[in-house]
Amino acid sequence: MNDVKNRPSEFDLIERLFSPLTSSHPGAENLKDDCSTLSISSGFEALYSVDTLVEGIHFFSADPAESVAKKMLRVSLSDIAASGGSPRGYLIALSLPRDVSLEWLEGFSKGLAEDQKKFNVVLLGGDTTSTSGPLTLSLTAIGEVPIGQAVRRSKIEVGDDIYVTGTIGDSALALRLINEIGRKEASRCYPKLLERYVLPQPRVTLGPLLIGLATSCIDISDGLCADLKQICKASNVSAEIRQAAIPLSLVAENLVKNNENYWQVVLGGGDDYELLFTANQSKRKIIEKVAKQIEISISRMGSIKTGEGVFVRNESGDLVLVDVPGWKHF
Amino acid sequence: MNDVKNRPSEFDLIERLFSPLTSSHPGAENLKDDCSTLSISSGFEALYSVDTLVEGIHFFSADPAESVAKKMLRVSLSDIAASGGSPRGYLIALSLPRDVSLEWLEGFSKGLAEDQKKFNVVLLGGDTTSTSGPLTLSLTAIGEVPIGQAVRRSKIEVGDDIYVTGTIGDSALALRLINEIGRKEASRCYPKLLERYVLPQPRVTLGPLLIGLATSCIDISDGLCADLKQICKASNVSAEIRQAAIPLSLVAENLVKNNENYWQVVLGGGDDYELLFTANQSKRKIIEKVAKQIEISISRMGSIKTGEGVFVRNESGDLVLVDVPGWKHF
Repeated sequence: MNDVKNRPSEFDLIERLFSPLTSSHPGAENLKDDCSTLSISSGFEALYSVDTLVEGIHFFSADPAESVAKKMLRVSLSDIAASGGSPRGYLIALSLPRDVSLEWLEGFSKGLAEDQKKFNVVLLGGDTTSTSGPLTLSLTAIGEVPIGQAVRRSKIEVGDDIYVTGTIGDSALALRLINEIGRKEASRCYPKLLERYVLPQPRVTLGPLLIGLATSCIDISDGLCADLKQICKASNVSAEIRQAAIPLSLVAENLVKNNENYWQVVLGGGDDYELLFTANQSKRKIIEKVAKQIEISISRMGSIKTGEGVFVRNESGDLVLVDVPGWKHF
Repeated sequence: MNDVKNRPSEFDLIERLFSPLTSSHPGAENLKDDCSTLSISSGFEALYSVDTLVEGIHFFSADPAESVAKKMLRVSLSDIAASGGSPRGYLIALSLPRDVSLEWLEGFSKGLAEDQKKFNVVLLGGDTTSTSGPLTLSLTAIGEVPIGQAVRRSKIEVGDDIYVTGTIGDSALALRLINEIGRKEASRCYPKLLERYVLPQPRVTLGPLLIGLATSCIDISDGLCADLKQICKASNVSAEIRQAAIPLSLVAENLVKNNENYWQVVLGGGDDYELLFTANQSKRKIIEKVAKQIEISISRMGSIKTGEGVFVRNESGDLVLVDVPGWKHF
């Protein structure tokens, strides 16, 4: 219940580092009010997602403040995209240990400022408190979606195709390599993988285009198999994917070629933030067209069956054992 | 990055303790999706507020889980009320230490369930993580207000009356007494004050009635003088209030009668969650009528002047020194 010394007061902090992030959105009142307002577009409904990042669990203390800020924002924008929404704004709750420096906070604010422009969102409100524990960042993202049109998880039909954007496993492989050979060495040898871990790329452009196209969608945060299992469970179906159809980056391909065990990291590891979605087979051409139009790669990996579970088959048609459970932060 | 042992998994927890709190609001998808939807009423805009409660700072470890849950929700509903909004729903982010028991979580969920009914809101989404630090609860409240009609802080005019609901200082006096004589003794001797500290009463009924009536409004969380100063600053005016007009509970009145120093607690202490608002003198009769209609006490304490600052005068007309700064949690 004491003020934090050697750091600007909450009021000063907000005024200098966070008020500019409202980007003059009038409803944010420059963060000088406890409430902010936002008009949802006519014919749309509001879309909400909340996520927390805890230092030492979801990011490393050594991660630069800019990228922590960006990761926090992007993880939530990824959720909005997976529901077919367009992001509008966000609110943050920061619990700061007493030794967080002004420099860190400036970097954090800078990271948010850069990403806000990139993703066209504004800061709508925030709360800062001290904590005796680790740095804890909670973000509520606000998007909008045509009323009743949000892409949900329970509309999958048997026979639907299963798609995924980008490449899978890079982020989890980065984390595994950090644990195996240390961060410095991992950064030197696998810079592209590390980049994927530090800075996810939410598929915000694709998200709204999936409305009326996808029968379900989820962003891969817990892992390919765990997240696929989740949407299958919500629709009471099972999934079968071909191992060879799982899109890998060149680096990941080399890693699994040299060490079969890394396949478990690809199948079970999290934090890809690619979109995993299902669609009726009749949509194949449109999906190819969409992928070309917005210049992202979309891979068809398999299809939906009756029953329950997620099955991965190798090129001989045999089942691949998946023994890495969904990577749960909790 | 490990699963928490001896506690249900995040999925189980959500399903059993939190999904029922969505009260079948279809947009919440039983918390089985990363995003929830909410339609804002036609002609209204969304209203947002975020607050964090940290164990050991904003509540005591000994506080019952039910009341922690309720306090968390009510603090945010109070912000919505101060903007003239009607509450609709909320999202929570829970960072849980490993030793939080299932019993605690059940109590927490029970507290939310009770208050949801009372205040007519639903849980729209949540995130749970582990933390090595103190229990950290962050809540984003969502309300709605007629477009462009939110009660703001910058519209005060010189000559406006200054009002406050309920009684002031009870909560801060409770905290002071806990520190002075211990919680057990304080609970025994001052149960009503303790109740005010543990369980604030957000003025949700009054809030929307202040639209078109109040020229500014704030809920008292930092303290009477600090919060009055904040709205005055936002409107570039000063305030003068009569000490004798500050509404005190009978218990608080006895305390300040016996110990003058307690006045500083009343003037500077926080956590009242009463509404402090200003209104044109022409509105006196309507405000009296509103107070009667919704059966709450509203006291007129003073008026708005030019210049800056907040001045409290005693019955002889002399200035009362206010030496307790706004109680800042940060």
